[in-house]
Amino acid sequence: MRNVIGWGLIGGGEDSQIGEAHRIAARLDNCFALAAGALDIDPQRGRAFAGELGIAPERAYGAWRDMLAGERDRPDRVGLVTVATPNATHFEISKAFLKAGFHVLVEKPMTMTVGEAEALQAIAQKSGRLLAVNFGYTGYPLVRQARAMVQEGDLGAIRIVVAEFAHGFHADAADAGNPRLRWRYDPAQAGASAVLADAGIHALHMIGYVTGQTITRLSAHFQSCVEGRQLEDDALLALDYSGGTTGRLWTSAVAVGQMHGLSIRIFGEKGGLRWHQEQPNQLFWTKLGEATRIVERGDAKLYPDAAAASRLAIGHTEGLPVAFANLYRDIAAAIHAGSTAPQGLPLAADGLEMARAVDAAARSAAEDGRWMAL
Amino acid sequence: MRNVIGWGLIGGGEDSQIGEAHRIAARLDNCFALAAGALDIDPQRGRAFAGELGIAPERAYGAWRDMLAGERDRPDRVGLVTVATPNATHFEISKAFLKAGFHVLVEKPMTMTVGEAEALQAIAQKSGRLLAVNFGYTGYPLVRQARAMVQEGDLGAIRIVVAEFAHGFHADAADAGNPRLRWRYDPAQAGASAVLADAGIHALHMIGYVTGQTITRLSAHFQSCVEGRQLEDDALLALDYSGGTTGRLWTSAVAVGQMHGLSIRIFGEKGGLRWHQEQPNQLFWTKLGEATRIVERGDAKLYPDAAAASRLAIGHTEGLPVAFANLYRDIAAAIHAGSTAPQGLPLAADGLEMARAVDAAARSAAEDGRWMAL
Amino acid sequence: MRNVIGWGLIGGGEDSQIGEAHRIAARLDNCFALAAGALDIDPQRGRAFAGELGIAPERAYGAWRDMLAGERDRPDRVGLVTVATPNATHFEISKAFLKAGFHVLVEKPMTMTVGEAEALQAIAQKSGRLLAVNFGYTGYPLVRQARAMVQEGDLGAIRIVVAEFAHGFHADAADAGNPRLRWRYDPAQAGASAVLADAGIHALHMIGYVTGQTITRLSAHFQSCVEGRQLEDDALLALDYSGGTTGRLWTSAVAVGQMHGLSIRIFGEKGGLRWHQEQPNQLFWTKLGEATRIVERGDAKLYPDAAAASRLAIGHTEGLPVAFANLYRDIAAAIHAGSTAPQGLPLAADGLEMARAVDAAARSAAEDGRWMAL
Amino acid sequence: MRNVIGWGLIGGGEDSQIGEAHRIAARLDNCFALAAGALDIDPQRGRAFAGELGIAPERAYGAWRDMLAGERDRPDRVGLVTVATPNATHFEISKAFLKAGFHVLVEKPMTMTVGEAEALQAIAQKSGRLLAVNFGYTGYPLVRQARAMVQEGDLGAIRIVVAEFAHGFHADAADAGNPRLRWRYDPAQAGASAVLADAGIHALHMIGYVTGQTITRLSAHFQSCVEGRQLEDDALLALDYSGGTTGRLWTSAVAVGQMHGLSIRIFGEKGGLRWHQEQPNQLFWTKLGEATRIVERGDAKLYPDAAAASRLAIGHTEGLPVAFANLYRDIAAAIHAGSTAPQGLPLAADGLEMARAVDAAARSAAEDGRWMAL
Repeated sequence: MRNVIGWGLIGGGEDSQIGEAHRIAARLDNCFALAAGALDIDPQRGRAFAGELGIAPERAYGAWRDMLAGERDRPDRVGLVTVATPNATHFEISKAFLKAGFHVLVEKPMTMTVGEAEALQAIAQKSGRLLAVNFGYTGYPLVRQARAMVQEGDLGAIRIVVAEFAHGFHADAADAGNPRLRWRYDPAQAGASAVLADAGIHALHMIGYVTGQTITRLSAHFQSCVEGRQLEDDALLALDYSGGTTGRLWTSAVAVGQMHGLSIRIFGEKGGLRWHQEQPNQLFWTKLGEATRIVERGDAKLYPDAAAASRLAIGHTEGLPVAFANLYRDIAAAIHAGSTAPQGLPLAADGLEMARAVDAAARSAAEDGRWMAL
Repeated sequence: MRNVIGWGLIGGGEDSQIGEAHRIAARLDNCFALAAGALDIDPQRGRAFAGELGIAPERAYGAWRDMLAGERDRPDRVGLVTVATPNATHFEISKAFLKAGFHVLVEKPMTMTVGEAEALQAIAQKSGRLLAVNFGYTGYPLVRQARAMVQEGDLGAIRIVVAEFAHGFHADAADAGNPRLRWRYDPAQAGASAVLADAGIHALHMIGYVTGQTITRLSAHFQSCVEGRQLEDDALLALDYSGGTTGRLWTSAVAVGQMHGLSIRIFGEKGGLRWHQEQPNQLFWTKLGEATRIVERGDAKLYPDAAAASRLAIGHTEGLPVAFANLYRDIAAAIHAGSTAPQGLPLAADGLEMARAVDAAARSAAEDGRWMAL
Repeated sequence: MRNVIGWGLIGGGEDSQIGEAHRIAARLDNCFALAAGALDIDPQRGRAFAGELGIAPERAYGAWRDMLAGERDRPDRVGLVTVATPNATHFEISKAFLKAGFHVLVEKPMTMTVGEAEALQAIAQKSGRLLAVNFGYTGYPLVRQARAMVQEGDLGAIRIVVAEFAHGFHADAADAGNPRLRWRYDPAQAGASAVLADAGIHALHMIGYVTGQTITRLSAHFQSCVEGRQLEDDALLALDYSGGTTGRLWTSAVAVGQMHGLSIRIFGEKGGLRWHQEQPNQLFWTKLGEATRIVERGDAKLYPDAAAASRLAIGHTEGLPVAFANLYRDIAAAIHAGSTAPQGLPLAADGLEMARAVDAAARSAAEDGRWMAL
Repeated sequence: MRNVIGWGLIGGGEDSQIGEAHRIAARLDNCFALAAGALDIDPQRGRAFAGELGIAPERAYGAWRDMLAGERDRPDRVGLVTVATPNATHFEISKAFLKAGFHVLVEKPMTMTVGEAEALQAIAQKSGRLLAVNFGYTGYPLVRQARAMVQEGDLGAIRIVVAEFAHGFHADAADAGNPRLRWRYDPAQAGASAVLADAGIHALHMIGYVTGQTITRLSAHFQSCVEGRQLEDDALLALDYSGGTTGRLWTSAVAVGQMHGLSIRIFGEKGGLRWHQEQPNQLFWTKLGEATRIVERGDAKLYPDAAAASRLAIGHTEGLPVAFANLYRDIAAAIHAGSTAPQGLPLAADGLEMARAVDAAARSAAEDGRWMAL
């Protein structure tokens, strides 16, 4: 039997939705058991909630520094730390835990700046620890099928990829002053980009994940549609990739009627693919000159990576909890194998590339769409 | 903190898909921890697999009777036993554990015969223990929304419900002799019905679950499309319900191209609903005379039962693992509350009604569709 | 050049939607030119409207008998008469025109009774004229593709066909007394059946059209959901077909939220098909053991009958006007060829079979679903 | 009765698909009767096909100049000339017929250059004749509903519009040398743009049609994915509009698996709309904070412009032929009313704006996406 790995969570308190998603994902395959946490900026609330979750009192920490101090020297210290705190703290916390020899899964964006991202990657490399970044949508079985199909050459050389992540939940001008939203559009708190850094980044990352290529240059147009916002709530990007693929990306937070809107369409010399996060159990595949096929999650003919990422029989639905759990399972496998560079898992290099891309996009947008090399 | 309940699993061995689904569902909300198991008809395989799952050697049982004997007197005995063995054994095992004072979740069909079902219900009642039946699709948040909408009168009196569960995975005549399939169509092993008892039963149960009504009489037509089959692989039912609703049900195992096919459409005086298991995060609602609305899982306006059954924000996908986990969470809540008759959880009465319905349908089909009272 | 055929229309006055549909369909391919009409029960309104449509005053008749008298001896008399009057008059008018040597296209239902249908078929046969019946949905290119695929054996022997035609436009109890609806549920005016004879009949006919089989026996359950209705507004049928296929049909007029709801699913030994009238340009085809393919209208690989029924390139939409025009084009081709029994066009035999089926269904429903032979 | 208008067609010969589409559209409402034609570059083929279509021999012209000479002085000369010839001839032919006092409907693109477009608009204005441009997708009832909703303020100020027209029928590199395709990517024959001028232009025009705004500036990125092509087969545009709306447009001819791909999404302060040409009978409307509604063509609550553009009852399908016929019907109404500037019909100004936009996009793309004012 594989040992269940002790797991520590920083952030993800009672009101946090992403915290609950992490707990479900970590637990789903019994790879991790929650053993320690610093769950809230309010120490008391954090400790109380940790208690509710079954964390032992002495490992229910009031702050991440306490957790670092407390776990560092325990013989049974946690094997993985997940950092799900506000973005501005990702760098500092991840750095500290890596340096102390912990494996880390950090929420996206990995850091606030390119400089931090470069530093963190170097720290991770030097530490010999795993630094994974939570681009959780890459865990969907059919995203992995798409990736495998590209790798296997089923689509030929990839010409165009069109990706979107556009929702409408920041569209209400009357709600723009709501503190829950306002900070996202304030450069002092959110950095150089809002919707691209928050939502579009998933779509952008997925282009590279599926094609196996990196961004060479990009051009971006930002738009801010709601009065009082300093950062963009809608963006359009053109991208060039290392393997010759052309990328097109639209992201928005004011697209009323779109619920989530993460989708990717991949067009190669020999065929095309279409996948939409809101109906994740189907992948639409068209071979050049043939009728479109509906590839189902759970189909016996999926590539191994996709098959392995799937739990239930064809026709049954799997959603984001299982996709997300696949990242945790991959992390567990890497930890057990002693690997810091497992295939198919978003790592520091992904986080760094996305930091560079967001930074370049903000600079491009500020110069009316001038192309920026990465 | 709510205590995590010790959990025992019978059946659901290494090759069993439903076993894995149960383990994910039981674990997802951290309500249950797998503590004991008799996982395989082959004792050695069962014990080995239990070990892999982290069950302590002394609670990795070779057979369910050993488990009963072993757990009965432990102070830390499991708080719930899940019975996921072949259908013909459900009755005997459930009976034994109930009598020994365990709460039981049994896979559907609850029993092979109406007599057994009646007996088991009586046993459960007498035992003061919970007997839940795994009609797992009732855990979907939007199924619970549909139920709440009916209860709240949003649709007025329900006139017609059309339900389906039709797949195509038993359509290949060349595969009909495959032992994995053959037993299902053999009355000696499967009882009076094949596809209705196996698949259609979920759709049939859902009609009652959503409407809150019970079947008063039914008429059934069975068809066997593949040579050599003694039991039906396609069936059509007309049903009358206690509250005046008319039911129409089609189920099939030869519907090539249908992947799963569980769907329900509910038509009342004041509106209609449409839900399809393969796209479970949307519910289509039409108020009389108005445009159809797409109700999204995660919407802030859902009824409490639906909202409580949901984990992630609107637009993100939840699938069957979460739906199924809702049953486990409901069971845990009932156990903690000491309730044997929680609302919204399929219980012995459901299992009994379905047994009666399948029995009546088989008799009706044998008499050319004669109406049978339940 | 093929001569444009002079065309006469009976019924289909200014407020009639089906009249406009006939005029568009007859005109769309320039096969017919409207030359005579008795368009309204009110002679003056009929003549006025005929004038607006460009019919010469002397051929703008006040009543069908006048039209019969007026056209009978004209050297340029119309080559086809379309009968789009209230159902109860179909028989008499069609009979009169056939006997006078006109080709006739009659709206469905062809007649009110089986006896009339038998008589009319005999009259047509004796007359040497064409009697077509407007089952207009058979003109959709992908319905013809489905038919061709069955004929070519692409699906193997057909086991099960599931057809529906269920809308919700008679669901409003407050509107039930509206004369526009009331007559449909009054046996004195509508005959033995309401929704089956009006809507379900199209779905029922399509089963036979696509499979090439005839009904041998059927069992029906009728339901009337709105107070005051004597005839059914919801029905469920089980059917046996001459070639061994089993049919399942649901039709309804109280299915709130369904707009039209004509669909057909065909399941054979070697594959399955799915088609829905509301998205008619796609046909979903699943070969046994393969991924579902989306067959597009306009695809170069369609069978000749389907290709011929299509006007526009793939991806462009065709709707019911083109489908319906295909019937007119087929009629024109038959007239030019002197054929009274063209392939693929619904004729008197179709009308008669449907009359028998509706009659049998009403009798079956009255006897609690007893099987009735046709 | 409104007089049927004599109609002349230039181009649109036997092998032309657009010619057949024009004939169906012109005929569908009986507004026009084909009376003259110069249908083919080959005079003999053109006259022969004209004969088949029922055009009188003396009006079956061998060339458009003959038609101009022949029709100019006839007392019964055609009331409308449709120009459906190769793009490079649109200007010259339209000019000649306008100057001779004919109303003209010209295929898109109206001309090859901005200079020609300006000249033609001036000529049309001076002539007092109608010059309509065939942006035929604007005839869909639900596109007109979208336009009316914007006009009525149902969506508030429009922030973002995302439009696409992306197909995959020029994706096959092996077919790139095919003369049918090759000319489109040759600047000598096609001008400055390929896929944008051919396909994307419809999506681009629709943004302005629905919002009522004009383009103030744009930035474009062109990509050519198939070896040997000099012009773009994929393009991305960012646009600013006169009313403050931001446009995003993607067009492609190498998007394997997309059949047609014209779609538009409109996001305003108070709501959003989504429409897709391949399912044109539904419009998805989301009011801020409410569930998405499915607006059906044929619904009684549509705005008058949309209702008037619709022929059949809700649930029945209308496709492009009816949409296209709406343009012909609008033209006929304008002719009867003596109007040269009817509302809702694409006119010379539309053609000119699109010429300027395509020109600006090609220049922008050549300068790496520099913003170009229109």
